[in-house]
Order: sequence, then structure tokens, then C-alpha cells
Amino acid sequence: MGGIAFGRFDDSFSLGSLKAYLAEFISTLLFVFAGVGSAIAYGKLTSDAALDPSGLVAIAICHAFALFVAVAVGANISGGHVNPAVTFGLALGGQITILTGIFYWIAQLVGAIVACLLLKVVTGGLAVPVHSLAAGVGAIEGVVMEIIITFALVYCVYATAADPKKGSLGIVAPIAIGFIVGANILAAGPFSGGSMNPARSFGPAVVSGDFHDNWIYWVGPLIGGGLAGLIYGNVFMHSDHAPLVNEF
Amino acid sequence: MGGIAFGRFDDSFSLGSLKAYLAEFISTLLFVFAGVGSAIAYGKLTSDAALDPSGLVAIAICHAFALFVAVAVGANISGGHVNPAVTFGLALGGQITILTGIFYWIAQLVGAIVACLLLKVVTGGLAVPVHSLAAGVGAIEGVVMEIIITFALVYCVYATAADPKKGSLGIVAPIAIGFIVGANILAAGPFSGGSMNPARSFGPAVVSGDFHDNWIYWVGPLIGGGLAGLIYGNVFMHSDHAPLVNEF
Amino acid sequence: MGGIAFGRFDDSFSLGSLKAYLAEFISTLLFVFAGVGSAIAYGKLTSDAALDPSGLVAIAICHAFALFVAVAVGANISGGHVNPAVTFGLALGGQITILTGIFYWIAQLVGAIVACLLLKVVTGGLAVPVHSLAAGVGAIEGVVMEIIITFALVYCVYATAADPKKGSLGIVAPIAIGFIVGANILAAGPFSGGSMNPARSFGPAVVSGDFHDNWIYWVGPLIGGGLAGLIYGNVFMHSDHAPLVNEF
Amino acid sequence: MGGIAFGRFDDSFSLGSLKAYLAEFISTLLFVFAGVGSAIAYGKLTSDAALDPSGLVAIAICHAFALFVAVAVGANISGGHVNPAVTFGLALGGQITILTGIFYWIAQLVGAIVACLLLKVVTGGLAVPVHSLAAGVGAIEGVVMEIIITFALVYCVYATAADPKKGSLGIVAPIAIGFIVGANILAAGPFSGGSMNPARSFGPAVVSGDFHDNWIYWVGPLIGGGLAGLIYGNVFMHSDHAPLVNEF
Repeated sequence: MGGIAFGRFDDSFSLGSLKAYLAEFISTLLFVFAGVGSAIAYGKLTSDAALDPSGLVAIAICHAFALFVAVAVGANISGGHVNPAVTFGLALGGQITILTGIFYWIAQLVGAIVACLLLKVVTGGLAVPVHSLAAGVGAIEGVVMEIIITFALVYCVYATAADPKKGSLGIVAPIAIGFIVGANILAAGPFSGGSMNPARSFGPAVVSGDFHDNWIYWVGPLIGGGLAGLIYGNVFMHSDHAPLVNEF
Repeated sequence: MGGIAFGRFDDSFSLGSLKAYLAEFISTLLFVFAGVGSAIAYGKLTSDAALDPSGLVAIAICHAFALFVAVAVGANISGGHVNPAVTFGLALGGQITILTGIFYWIAQLVGAIVACLLLKVVTGGLAVPVHSLAAGVGAIEGVVMEIIITFALVYCVYATAADPKKGSLGIVAPIAIGFIVGANILAAGPFSGGSMNPARSFGPAVVSGDFHDNWIYWVGPLIGGGLAGLIYGNVFMHSDHAPLVNEF
Repeated sequence: MGGIAFGRFDDSFSLGSLKAYLAEFISTLLFVFAGVGSAIAYGKLTSDAALDPSGLVAIAICHAFALFVAVAVGANISGGHVNPAVTFGLALGGQITILTGIFYWIAQLVGAIVACLLLKVVTGGLAVPVHSLAAGVGAIEGVVMEIIITFALVYCVYATAADPKKGSLGIVAPIAIGFIVGANILAAGPFSGGSMNPARSFGPAVVSGDFHDNWIYWVGPLIGGGLAGLIYGNVFMHSDHAPLVNEF
Repeated sequence: MGGIAFGRFDDSFSLGSLKAYLAEFISTLLFVFAGVGSAIAYGKLTSDAALDPSGLVAIAICHAFALFVAVAVGANISGGHVNPAVTFGLALGGQITILTGIFYWIAQLVGAIVACLLLKVVTGGLAVPVHSLAAGVGAIEGVVMEIIITFALVYCVYATAADPKKGSLGIVAPIAIGFIVGANILAAGPFSGGSMNPARSFGPAVVSGDFHDNWIYWVGPLIGGGLAGLIYGNVFMHSDHAPLVNEF
């Protein structure tokens, strides 16, 4: 909890660490399979019509429920990051070493890619939709949107899961993490797409071969997640180490 | 728990208090960003069509999920009010001093305004919709609607979060607070708009410069929240101080 | 837990009992206000169109969220019945005396009537829709539907809230009770209406003066709730009193 | 936890076991009644139109809420499997004996059949829709889809309910189990139907007499559930028996 740490190689290759990478791989696979799957399902039901509010509800609820589960099933093994921006935010706040974080990223990205390959197979080769900016939304606007909503997500991870003062909120942490993503997709979906997660965006980009706009879903979430880690870690968790007299 | 208290200045400027104001600012910002964002998103997806049931579901679920998270992430720092009517109701029930409550209000209102300014930026300048009465709904009807639904909200805050006899309900308190707002929007949305929260209504009014009907979302929620504080604080929490013989 | 009990008058008029009746009145009022309100809201948004799937989702989610909250806020004061069929089922299982149950019924019914009167006021006099059988659904079919879905509800109340072996399920009891009602409305809504609750049906009947079919929402829920109380109380809770050797 | 066990006859006929079978019967009945009921309700509301996104949301939320409740109400009596694929996955991981598992299967299948018979009665003889592959989806694709989504479900059961290291996740286990099914239906519904549960598919097949494609909902879920049991039981639960030096 005291700043960024690089980490030791033998820690990152312990049996426990290997299990954690496998857990991140499986959790991200399951989350991306359901989430991207819900977008393909909408296209299938509507013959690829433009998104309407009931479709947005379907996709947002699917992401909310699936992320809740992906975080919950990984919680006791890997912490349930399921998202490179979460791992990055936790590394900046000193909750995970850089080295272990890199392996988390690899596990998450491979999990997302495998999920999209599987979707390609089970849907008989339907296109895998990628995150991209809606018509009329500029790159800066998209990046700022992703910064804000990913800040919300990683701030939520800190407050409910990572902060040692979280208390009984730890029980509802996976629900909170899932629901903030659902809420943010309902707001941001028609603008930036509402990714908050480079792995969620990268998997479809790899499988479809379409990387235009993909940088936005790296830059925005990493800035937003990093800011949340720095602010929460320094402002709200600081007192653990240097309590002041008139603090309650 | 023993009546209204004004509070001391040095308590309201302790490091802990300053952190609490920052937490209220961030929680309200995140809640209003998602909530108002979902209303803008509906307009974007439908080219500003009149609200239909699937849009009402989208907006209600977004507010429910986002408020749950906003309350949860603030719970251990500021109590997670995120709403001047909640702060007012808790002050009338003696749960927070008047002075600290004033700073909570400022943090909440500034958070809501900043959220709407950010929405203006990331949507490329789209209009920020304000709460207003639907056609055919009179001012008295709107005020009474907001009184009833805010009473429900603040009564829920007392029963699940503030009452020392709440027991394990404290764990689900943020969910209950989010869901009562979601349920009430599904009922009141097509009439008064279903605000229950002066900050939620004030931010869009400031950024859009449209204050017509805005008073309704101050008067209704403050009366409803105040009533809940007085009733719950005096009827259901009274026994903590003066238990009677034949009470169970 | 040991069979039906009539109860003593002085127990039913203790201060704690009076608080419980007030809590039932408020919880039922808030639940019925939101639930019936969501049905009026659908009519307002669609100019009283026939129910469609997105409207069914709106109404089911509203009832689920509002009932969850109504049960949660009453849990520590009155047990959070909010429903004469639940009170009846708990009385048959010996969880509440007949006498106290009668006062619960009165509080619930008055709360539902007041909720519908308030809806009449705040909507400017719109019609309050009553539960009735859909076209093509016979009385027997409606009664059996209500028996089955109310059995599910009261069985859920026993398993998660009333059974002393419930353990940590008690924390999610209000969620479970709200969600079973939401699920059952999604299934039964287009047939019997999906009431499961005589108070929820009686309030609109009184305020609209339309009692045709109303008996169905007394007979079905009371039979279903009573069956659940008898079965759960005798089969699953019996072992508390007479444990057998080879029982785990 | 130590591998597959056949079990002893007297254990499978203890009073506790008989209660467990009854609990599985009731839970599966209630789940299938609501779930299949929501599909019939969609047909009733839309005069049997093709599924659209708002109908998919209605059906997915109904299954999520109802399964959550079915698992919760059975949790302390039978473990709340409600699904032959879950029972199979838990048997392969050594959590239940083969013999008891067979009785669980019978209870689940009979519960599903009774639920569909009751639906036939209360809907006045409407057709009970069966799971089948959507147009353009091949058998292999359907089986693989069911394998993946059932893997997710049973992996979730292990991580949140069966693993002794689950900790406080046990409280949200029923929610997680319900929500993964809801998310997967939103993704897989328009392709394989999103069953994950042979009992959920078998009941409608029996009552409608339509068994074409039914084998898919046995083969897919049993392979997926079995894989989850083998992987979770051997990789993530193995350390309980043979902790290694550098494991955390």
C-alpha cells in the first residue's frame, strides 16, 4: 500500500501466482464472451439494426451481470481484476507489483482474444463488433468520456475491494463493480461505446482485424484508472500510515 | 440521534471532514454523470423522441445502479449521502450537524454541476436535459409526488443505514437506496421526472441555464426527506433512549 | 414455531406492536405507490396501449426493487411482511399470532388504499388500474396461477427470512423476496396479472370502485401462501424440534 | 473434495436426503415455472412474434431472478443445485456422491416436468416452447455454445458456493449464480437458446412431446459442467490437500 513496486521474479512464478493468471484468463474470457456475445445477439435479433434503448439495456445488463460474476469468481484467487485498467490503477496505488501486473495483463488480453475466437466459432462466423466512436463524437471527447467512466470504475474498486477500511462493503464489492459498468454503459454507450476496459476492446479488435479507434480504449481507461489509483491511494488510504490528530 | 445540532467549526474542518466533502463531491459527480448521461444517451439513440417504456427502464436502471455505487463508495468516508435531501433528513434526525451538512450540500451541488459540464464536453455540446413537470402535471401534484418518493428514499436511508438497530441490513443498504430510486423513477418519471434529489436537478439547471420548475425539486425533496427524518428519528429510533417496559 | 397461536391482546397493543403496525403501513404504502405507479406510468407513456414486453419489464423491475426495499426497511421493526398472504402463511406456520396478524392485515390494507389515493392525487386523477384476468384466462386458471406464484413467494420468505437455519441467507432475504415477485410478474403478468398480494390488488379496487375479479387475488394468494407455510413449517422446520438419528 | 464417490444407499435415504430431494423438486419447479412462463408470456403479449431485444431482456431477467431465488431457498437444505449439470459438475469434483446425485437428477427432472404441466393448465393450454437451435446455427455450434456458458455457470458455483475458501462470497453466491445465467441468456439466447440446464430443457420437451434438438441441452451442459468441476476441483481446490512451499 506504500507506492509502486516492481516485484520479484520468483514471486511472480509461484504456484499461487500461476493460479492467479489462470483465474484472470478464465474470468476475462467469461466476461468478454458474454459481453461481446450480447452485442452480437442484438445484431442477430434485429438484422443488425442501429442500437435502440432496449438493445442498450440488454447489453448494459449483460455486462453488469457478467462482470459481477467474473470479479466474484476471481476474487479469492487473483483479486478479480478482469481489466488491464484496474490492474494498472492498483499498481499505481501500490496494491500489486508491476511485474505481476504485466502477467495479469497478458492473461486478460489472451482471455479476451480467446473469447472472441470462440464467439466467432459458435455464431457460425458472424462479425465480432468492435468498440468505436459514434458518428459525431471526436477522439478527444471519446478519450475524456473513457477517462471519466473508468475513473468511476477503479475508484469503486478501491472503495469497495482494495481499501482495508472497506468493512462489510467487501461483500458487495463485485456487485458494485458490475453495476458501475452497467450504469456507465447506459450513459456512454451511444457515444464512446462505454468500454472502460482495454481487454474488452482489444479482443474484438484482434479477431476482427479492425484496430481503428482501438487506441482510445487504451489511453482513456489507463488514464482514468491511473488517476483513480493515485487519488484514492494518496488521499483516502494515506491516513493508514500517518494518522493526524484531529482526524476521525 | 438526540435532535438537531449546529456543530463546531473545528470539527467541520478536520482532515476527516475535508475528506468527507471530497468523497461527497466525487460520489455525486459520478452519480449525476451516469444518471444525466443516460437521459442524453436516450435522446441520442432516438433522435430526441418522446420517452418510451424501454427508455424509462434504461434511465431507471442507470440511476439505480449508479446511486448504489455512489453510496457504497462514499459509505465509509462520508456516509454516502450524495443528495441534499438525504443530508437534510439526517440533520433533522440528529445524525449530522447543520454546519457539516452545509458543507455536504456545497460538495454535492458542485459535484453535480461539474458532472453536467463534463457531459456537455464529452457529448460535443448536446443539450443537458433538466427535470421538469410533464404536460398536464400541475405544480402541487409535482411537489406532492416528490415529497412522497423522497420520503421513501430517506426512510430507506434511516432503516438500512442510519438506525443503530439495522444489523445485517447495513450490508445491503447501498443496494436498497439505489433500488428505491430506480423503482420510484419507474413510477414517477413520466409525471414529475422522479428526482428525489435537489443536486441531481440543480446541476443540469445550472449548465443549461433553465431554472423553470427547478424550485419543485428543492421544495418536494426537502419536505419529503425532512418528514422521513422526523418520523423515523422520533418514532422508530426513540426507544434507544427511553425503552418502555412492554416493548419487544 | 410450534403451530398456530391466537395471541394475547396486551401483546398486540404493546408499543413495539404499534410500531410494527406503523412500519407495515408505511412499507405497504411505499411498495404499492411505486408498483401501481409504474402501471399508471406505462399507460401515460403509451397513451394506454396494450402491455408490451418492455412495459412488462418496467413494471416487473419496479415491483421487484420496491418490494425488496419495503421488506428491508420493515425487517427489523415488523418483519417486513407487506402482504396479507405472507402474514397468513407465517401465522399458519406459527411465526406470528392470529391476533397480531389481523392488525398487520389492517395496516397493510390501509397502506395500500392510501397509496392509491395519493396516486390519484399526484397524477391529476388518472385511473388506477386494477388486477384482472387477461382475455381468455378463466377464473380457475387465474386462481391456480396465483396459488403457484404466491407459494413461491412465501416459500422464499420461509427459507430466507423465517427459518432459524437460514444463516447468512438472511442478509439477502429482502433481495430474494423482491426478485421472486419480479420473476413471477414476468411470467404471470399477461395471464393473472401476477399479484401474489391481496393488499396490492385491494387498494386499486377500493379507489377505482372496481371489484370484479378481486376475489381471485384473495383466494389464490391465501391458499398459496398458506400451503407454503404449512409445508415449509412442517417438513423443513420440523427437525428443530425432533431431530432424527440419521439426519444430516 | 477428494474425487468421485459412489455413496451408500442408507445415506441417500436418510431423512435429510429425502428433504434435499424435495427441496430440489420445489426449487426446480419454481425456477422452470417462472422461466418457461416468461417465454410463454412473451408469446402472449406479442401474438407469438419473433423474439426482439426487449423480450430477450424480459426472459433473461426472469431466469436470473428466479434462479437466484431457487438456489437461495434450497441452499441450506439441498445446496440449491436446481440443475443436473451443476449436480454432475459437483459429482465430478467430489462434492456429492453419484448415488445422491442420481436422486437429485430425478427430483430436478420431475420438478421441471410438473412446472410445465402446471403452465399448460394455467395458460389454458398454450404451447410450451422448447429450447432449439436458431435458424442458421449448426449442432456443433450449439453444443459448443452450451459447453462454454455452462462451464461459466458451474465454475461460478464452485468459486462462490462450493470452495471452502470462498469466504464472504458465499453470501452472494445465489446472486452470482442467477446473474451468470441472465448474462449468458442475453448472449446465447438468439443462438442456442441459452439453456445451461438439462432439466430446464427437458421439462418443456416432455410436455410438448418435441424432443428434436433436446440432446444438445444434455450433451453441452454436461460437458461444460463436468469440465468446470474437473478444472476447478483439481487446479483451484487442490492446494487444500497438498500445499506447496512457495504458494501464497
